[in-house]
Amino acid sequence: MEIGIIGLGLIGGSFGLSLKKNGHSIMGYDHNKEHLQKALELGIIDKASNVSRIIDSCTCIIIAIPVNATKHVVYDVLNKINPEQVVLDVGSTKAKICSFVKDHRNRASYVAAHPMAGTEYTGPEAAIDGLFKGKVNIICDRELASIDALSKAMTLFESVGLSTIYMDSVEHDEHIAYVSHLSHITSFTLSLTVQDIEQNAKNIYNMAGSGFRSTARLAKSNADMWTPILINNKENLLVAAKAYQKHLESFIKALENADSSNIHDLILEANKIQDALDK
Amino acid sequence: MEIGIIGLGLIGGSFGLSLKKNGHSIMGYDHNKEHLQKALELGIIDKASNVSRIIDSCTCIIIAIPVNATKHVVYDVLNKINPEQVVLDVGSTKAKICSFVKDHRNRASYVAAHPMAGTEYTGPEAAIDGLFKGKVNIICDRELASIDALSKAMTLFESVGLSTIYMDSVEHDEHIAYVSHLSHITSFTLSLTVQDIEQNAKNIYNMAGSGFRSTARLAKSNADMWTPILINNKENLLVAAKAYQKHLESFIKALENADSSNIHDLILEANKIQDALDK
Repeated sequence: MEIGIIGLGLIGGSFGLSLKKNGHSIMGYDHNKEHLQKALELGIIDKASNVSRIIDSCTCIIIAIPVNATKHVVYDVLNKINPEQVVLDVGSTKAKICSFVKDHRNRASYVAAHPMAGTEYTGPEAAIDGLFKGKVNIICDRELASIDALSKAMTLFESVGLSTIYMDSVEHDEHIAYVSHLSHITSFTLSLTVQDIEQNAKNIYNMAGSGFRSTARLAKSNADMWTPILINNKENLLVAAKAYQKHLESFIKALENADSSNIHDLILEANKIQDALDK
Repeated sequence: MEIGIIGLGLIGGSFGLSLKKNGHSIMGYDHNKEHLQKALELGIIDKASNVSRIIDSCTCIIIAIPVNATKHVVYDVLNKINPEQVVLDVGSTKAKICSFVKDHRNRASYVAAHPMAGTEYTGPEAAIDGLFKGKVNIICDRELASIDALSKAMTLFESVGLSTIYMDSVEHDEHIAYVSHLSHITSFTLSLTVQDIEQNAKNIYNMAGSGFRSTARLAKSNADMWTPILINNKENLLVAAKAYQKHLESFIKALENADSSNIHDLILEANKIQDALDK
């Protein structure tokens, strides 16, 4: 299958590497010319191209760009495709994009997806063959996509090792605020706080155990990618962040009161996340 | 060298495994009889013993128990040792312990250490040979320990792969509040918050990417171990936690205002942690 990828960063690039390995031919485009050139050099794509030529040639078009730009690009691409083609987007927020294209005459050719995979790095150099292996992909509002589009999308997703669950796009954004976007805010905040006291990077490096490293890892995440995600999912994220503030306040109160029994209970309650993470 | 380990959990157990491999003979004690038995079965120690016999036989005594109990045990052991013996503690807080034993007649035989190594697991089953390899050990108030005690301690620490830095015990606790204890509070809080919305563990498991997993990992940490650490370092931790609250508030304000430029700046600032973590 001829596949086009618009956006050749971590996610788009990793699709390129993984799909090429499965024998697909990949045309790629990135509005950043250096990234496009790099993607070609790194073997992420077979051919550097542009959006028009991708629409002219590709059965499947994967859009992997910052979420603030996605809805317009999805809409424009849907304007120009024929019924055999399928358009996928693989960004971290889904409700606004799905709402924007809801009434498009070619809505049935669009599959809204969110592969739960990534790292804290960015750009084509960050692309990894195998990034999606064993990971979960969330397809939103599946009932609005045609069986043919879904089937083509599933073939691609399965071939890179993703297993799929289905969800309403509004519900997706609510939940993802808690299990992904909030983690980024807490990591960014942790980093800002530690930098207050540790002006000296060497001190952080020396004193930081693996616990701090894993908690602060997401603080390295790319600002160009994450600013639009956070803004895009602002309403849900504010609900999550305020719930977090409330729990933090309870923890701090227990600490102020040196209330060992309360702290012990809070930790035991927090420990329950283990059931979810160790499955 | 005959080595005694009091407390055979993750840290004490990992010392046992690593030191035995280097040819040392290990006597162990844990007030939890099952842990003591398990440590023997797992080959963490050569001999299950008690505190008196450890004091009678061991050149080096490592104390690896919850920090609320450490100061009393260090004090008691110091009461009974002779000048050839050295007592080490390897807990996560140092100032209160160092202050408690400051005027002990045998203070010079005590080395206050904090190896920056661990996992979110607990008990002798969590012990890992090689846990300390390539990690940093912080020795506090070195000037109060004798050259002989330091030299014996360094031999042990180096043999398990730890490199050492030195720090004042009060300063240690201030900094560790930021680069270790605060991370635990933010992870516990994240877990409590996510459980509000995700009653269904399966949903967390399906939707959680590697980012959430790494941010929430410390939420699995043991309540019996961490309650005393947090209480013990309460004053410093409250300063850190309140600074964190302030930064979180700024982030939330920027989000409420959908202020992309401000959020972008905050993320760029947070990204600077990379310099410290990737060294």
